[in-house]
Amino acid sequence: MIVEIARLKAKPGAGESLRGGLRAARAVIAQAAGYRGSVFHRGIEEPDSFLLRIEWETLEAHTAGFRQSRLFPEWRSHFADFLDGAPDVRHYEVFAEE
Amino acid sequence: MIVEIARLKAKPGAGESLRGGLRAARAVIAQAAGYRGSVFHRGIEEPDSFLLRIEWETLEAHTAGFRQSRLFPEWRSHFADFLDGAPDVRHYEVFAEE
Repeated sequence: MIVEIARLKAKPGAGESLRGGLRAARAVIAQAAGYRGSVFHRGIEEPDSFLLRIEWETLEAHTAGFRQSRLFPEWRSHFADFLDGAPDVRHYEVFAEE
Repeated sequence: MIVEIARLKAKPGAGESLRGGLRAARAVIAQAAGYRGSVFHRGIEEPDSFLLRIEWETLEAHTAGFRQSRLFPEWRSHFADFLDGAPDVRHYEVFAEE
């Protein structure tokens, strides 16, 4: 299992719209092969900042599978208009959890 | 419940030491009032980058409680020597989870 962490920023005034779009988009990514679950976060100090934590079976399930699937443009269509800049996406392994 | 996200960077060559120090430090933070659990992550693209996701009952349990408790210097003592710069710490609310 690996973890994708995506950090997104809303355009000025678009925080609520981005939140709603991301909620709708979750139903799309949940259909992807190798998707294991996710938690979507919104900043307290910076309400225009969002952080998505998405678990995948493998790195390739995200980078090769999902991003090249028909689901990817559908996923992005729910929130792309509300983004300020490109999302910052990194992958992580988990080394301690409880 | 709120989520703390802390991003830390290891000094050059100190990635394994930071990983070990953070594992040891978890036993300390787990004693804090209002601590609910945590997941510690290490970067795949950037193995010197670490991301801690820590759940707290309230924002104040972290900012006022833990940071001002006797546990805080003990927590930091396990890994502070391996840090490159100060951690970047933000707080988030969860708006979608499964």
